[in-house]
Amino acid sequence: MQPNGIITLLTDFGLKDGYVAIMKGVILGIAPAARLIDVTHDVAPQAVGEAAYLLHTCFRYFPLGTLHLVVVDPGVGSERKALAVATPQAFFVGPDNGVFAGIVDEARREYGAGVEIVELQEPRFWRSDVSRTFHGRDIFAPVAAHLLQGVPLREFGTPLQTLAPCSVEDPGVDYRGGLRGEIVHVDRFGNCITNITVEHLRRHGIDQQLVVEIVDQRLEGLIETYAMASFGTPIALIGSSNHLELAVRNGSAARALGVVAGDRVRVVTATGTELTQGK
Amino acid sequence: MQPNGIITLLTDFGLKDGYVAIMKGVILGIAPAARLIDVTHDVAPQAVGEAAYLLHTCFRYFPLGTLHLVVVDPGVGSERKALAVATPQAFFVGPDNGVFAGIVDEARREYGAGVEIVELQEPRFWRSDVSRTFHGRDIFAPVAAHLLQGVPLREFGTPLQTLAPCSVEDPGVDYRGGLRGEIVHVDRFGNCITNITVEHLRRHGIDQQLVVEIVDQRLEGLIETYAMASFGTPIALIGSSNHLELAVRNGSAARALGVVAGDRVRVVTATGTELTQGK
Amino acid sequence: MQPNGIITLLTDFGLKDGYVAIMKGVILGIAPAARLIDVTHDVAPQAVGEAAYLLHTCFRYFPLGTLHLVVVDPGVGSERKALAVATPQAFFVGPDNGVFAGIVDEARREYGAGVEIVELQEPRFWRSDVSRTFHGRDIFAPVAAHLLQGVPLREFGTPLQTLAPCSVEDPGVDYRGGLRGEIVHVDRFGNCITNITVEHLRRHGIDQQLVVEIVDQRLEGLIETYAMASFGTPIALIGSSNHLELAVRNGSAARALGVVAGDRVRVVTATGTELTQGK
Repeated sequence: MQPNGIITLLTDFGLKDGYVAIMKGVILGIAPAARLIDVTHDVAPQAVGEAAYLLHTCFRYFPLGTLHLVVVDPGVGSERKALAVATPQAFFVGPDNGVFAGIVDEARREYGAGVEIVELQEPRFWRSDVSRTFHGRDIFAPVAAHLLQGVPLREFGTPLQTLAPCSVEDPGVDYRGGLRGEIVHVDRFGNCITNITVEHLRRHGIDQQLVVEIVDQRLEGLIETYAMASFGTPIALIGSSNHLELAVRNGSAARALGVVAGDRVRVVTATGTELTQGK
Repeated sequence: MQPNGIITLLTDFGLKDGYVAIMKGVILGIAPAARLIDVTHDVAPQAVGEAAYLLHTCFRYFPLGTLHLVVVDPGVGSERKALAVATPQAFFVGPDNGVFAGIVDEARREYGAGVEIVELQEPRFWRSDVSRTFHGRDIFAPVAAHLLQGVPLREFGTPLQTLAPCSVEDPGVDYRGGLRGEIVHVDRFGNCITNITVEHLRRHGIDQQLVVEIVDQRLEGLIETYAMASFGTPIALIGSSNHLELAVRNGSAARALGVVAGDRVRVVTATGTELTQGK
Repeated sequence: MQPNGIITLLTDFGLKDGYVAIMKGVILGIAPAARLIDVTHDVAPQAVGEAAYLLHTCFRYFPLGTLHLVVVDPGVGSERKALAVATPQAFFVGPDNGVFAGIVDEARREYGAGVEIVELQEPRFWRSDVSRTFHGRDIFAPVAAHLLQGVPLREFGTPLQTLAPCSVEDPGVDYRGGLRGEIVHVDRFGNCITNITVEHLRRHGIDQQLVVEIVDQRLEGLIETYAMASFGTPIALIGSSNHLELAVRNGSAARALGVVAGDRVRVVTATGTELTQGK
């Protein structure tokens, strides 16, 4: 598959500074026709898990061959590796800190050997003067632009098999037989998105009659749509990305529940049946 | 008139999440050459009146044939209709909740039968799996993209005559003979923009010698430019969109006056003449 | 040199309003193929010095012939001039309030007579109805678009030699023999960027063994990379734009030090040697 000319950008740089624009300038100097689409630059500083979640929610909605450039890079200047990844669906460029781990796992299950990863090792595709603190500008942006221009993946470095893992654990059944997960993102409305998907619920035999436990509160039952909820009361629902979300109609669930990204959630059945590990 | 290839986006999704990028990905999958321009994604959550105001201030500055995609949609998942509108000036796609009511009224006064509206009813132009909570992605974005690609308006559904009204009332003369309006938007500088335009003032015979009453304060006289105002003192002036604004030179009028969007303003003549209903 | 089709935008308009979109609409009406790249719209309101710094960090990373449109314009409506500048590297359009002073000085040292400046005086390139408060829309955006379309610089007005100065002073040696500078920008991570560059340090014979004095604190030694610093302790390092920065690993230096943009910094040698004025 060839790149389609679109590069998305996902960083924790914010929009107060020129950092994002600088990366765009570097890209346009190499790939003048690149179509640049911002995902977000408001990832919490150095929150690799949040970046991984946001990328995961987005990338499948872009046309085949889109290149996703992710620079959330707490280890910049240390020994962490730099990556480019190609799947039959998309390209990914960024640091090897777990941000692509989930996507690569999924892609390998789906496409097997169709997933290629290289460690970026060829300085001829970088800016000549690489800084210690801004690899987004000096390594990742130029590599993305050269990839867009048709340079084959294998020219950027040597193949890599094993990636660094992501810091957020997958949901699993705890010793008391409940499904344990985590809030990975609080969106601008205050909706709390967990890492528990429809798929996890189904696998563990959990239906609409679930109970979500969060901090010291219990939300009973899955609501189908915001419009069916009363104002002010926290509810659980399946959001548009198929993740379990906690929400308040016309309000902020994060504020109502007093929770933040990283807080644990636990899902049990209304009847208290112990969950098994699932298939 | 044909679409010119530009789609503007106006939502209350914020930029912390991937929602806006997802809509762009969906659009680019259907209309790869679309030019995407953000108006703002920082409309107060579900503030249809603010979205209507912001769209109204912007759309005339875009070239003929621009398509404006607006997703501020508190009724998503309920029975509210979905719309596409074509005027001899522009295209509009979004929910039927009043956000286009003012623009359609104006366009009908200006162009009469040249204004076409359809209710979106043809799922073949939507994503195959429509969620309950994200019609921006599943209905509005793909419809906008197909419209851009040249699908005629009438293919998206059946003609509609009457739209849902907007929640913000038009300015009018109150029982004490003053012109009553409302702050519809506080901009990033803290300037308070009202829904009273130069046209309203003229129609009611109000000149530079006006007095603006807001909460318990009175601002006397229209100032011509910020540079003519003293620092720190709230003033009234006609802003760049021809609306009456309250401002503080190098400061925030919203903070100085202690007001927010939705607060009432009242304009009277300096001499206390009672206003008539105007022509 | 000809414009390359890219226009960057740098303003203090924020993204809550339609102002930036309006400027883009005006540009696209004149130059339909313009590539529009946001630098930032979150310059502190009317902070010309911060805009100058941000532009300076960015513009060299864009391809030759990029046009930079800067609208941070506290003097709008007063007698301040309006400018267009061409260097062998780039084009600049905006108000004459010091925002381009540093770049023009540098360009003159580098290119001499290759730097052209005109005062914008030809209303035929403006919108027909120029407001008192929004020259970004009515003068700067249309001029930028016409320049992009190939109108020669000299057609926009008469040549100008002297620009208004910038409000932030260059670093210099103080009476006690230390190098005095200023924080010009606090980035989203809380890193405090000063106006002291590697070049200033070298010119004054300051090496890694420096001491940075800020308010009542002393930071000793230059750190090479964030990863080498302990968590929580403020450090000094050379940032990716070659400016002296104060930072805290995985934290905010602005908060840790209690400082804001505009605060003074002073650099001395560890041995206390008095600095000379340098070459």
